[in-house]
Amino acid sequence: MNARKAVVIYSGGMDSFTLLHQVIQQGYQVYPVSFDYGQRHARELAAAKHVCQMLNLPHQCIDLRSIQPLLDQSALTGQHPVPQGTYAPENLQITLVPNRNMILLSLAIAYAVNLGANECFYGAHGGDHVLYPDCRPEFVTGMDQMAQISNLQPVRIRAPFLHYDKADILRLGQAMHLDYALTWTCYQGAEQPCGTCSACHERAQAFAACGCADPLIG
Amino acid sequence: MNARKAVVIYSGGMDSFTLLHQVIQQGYQVYPVSFDYGQRHARELAAAKHVCQMLNLPHQCIDLRSIQPLLDQSALTGQHPVPQGTYAPENLQITLVPNRNMILLSLAIAYAVNLGANECFYGAHGGDHVLYPDCRPEFVTGMDQMAQISNLQPVRIRAPFLHYDKADILRLGQAMHLDYALTWTCYQGAEQPCGTCSACHERAQAFAACGCADPLIG
Repeated sequence: MNARKAVVIYSGGMDSFTLLHQVIQQGYQVYPVSFDYGQRHARELAAAKHVCQMLNLPHQCIDLRSIQPLLDQSALTGQHPVPQGTYAPENLQITLVPNRNMILLSLAIAYAVNLGANECFYGAHGGDHVLYPDCRPEFVTGMDQMAQISNLQPVRIRAPFLHYDKADILRLGQAMHLDYALTWTCYQGAEQPCGTCSACHERAQAFAACGCADPLIG
Repeated sequence: MNARKAVVIYSGGMDSFTLLHQVIQQGYQVYPVSFDYGQRHARELAAAKHVCQMLNLPHQCIDLRSIQPLLDQSALTGQHPVPQGTYAPENLQITLVPNRNMILLSLAIAYAVNLGANECFYGAHGGDHVLYPDCRPEFVTGMDQMAQISNLQPVRIRAPFLHYDKADILRLGQAMHLDYALTWTCYQGAEQPCGTCSACHERAQAFAACGCADPLIG
């Protein structure tokens, strides 16, 4: 019997890195896809490429920087300063890429149709959905319904971490013995994680909650 | 009072050309956006640029050719022959760009959020929805619901031609005295419309149904 094909949206960060491995372990034939929409943390994409090479997976890395004129209010793609410290509504909103998850899912669905894959996985999780509208359960449910009717071939959207927080995801990865040195999280694109941006802060909290050390630090 | 802002997905073809003018006449401040996804009829985009210049509209033309690796089964973007004659399921299916309208709408919604526009217009119509899943009323209704929840700012999807056929759209444009010499329809990218591809065939049927001559045909 042929393995079921699945598209996995894989940014190179720790959530989608864990998801990628979970989907592989579930026996799917996995097609990871990464998107470069001009985010400052392009080092994430380098991490994604490296991991896919190691795992011998057919990685698609799609350059979406041409859509920037449509998105130019966001801190992650524009010229605004990166927010520091704990995520909070007032400094998180500037990190919002307008309609990001709908854009990425719409492309992943297209790829699934093209491959004859029936499922698309992405790493939306509870740590996000309080603040990001496109990580909420009603968004995921709605996109799953749309993916079933927008092409002749129905596709399902899977977000298995939807009710996890980042520490839950990390615990799952630790149980799979994953090496988080192969991931990248920092919003700044320097050689080492800055340790002060909101993304670094959130990553550090997850490692602290799990009682383990981040292999990227020190 | 400031005019309401609206994003209009404008390909340069006759449907979205008519739509663009209708939305302008309704008093909106219009932001047309075109997408180049490697379609053979790139002359459509040249027509779109020309019309936006004439109307002094802030046209965004977004190069999406980098997504082609995700879509490479389609005749419009790949290396397959363009179907000839009347549209029929067996030759239309090859013109399907996987998940096209969800991709284009997701980007138009992002642009609307960025602009502070509350509405996105696109030219889905009845002549399409029999065969194209992403021109059906249930697709439009579903995307309208998603656009209201996927960002902090709700956006509405408007498809005013949903229950029109192409001849109805042309009649509306004739009533507005629009010049269809400013549109492009042919799937082939030659100097003159080929007259034989499915798109030319459908255009000719619309002009015949309205009892008027196509100004593109000498």
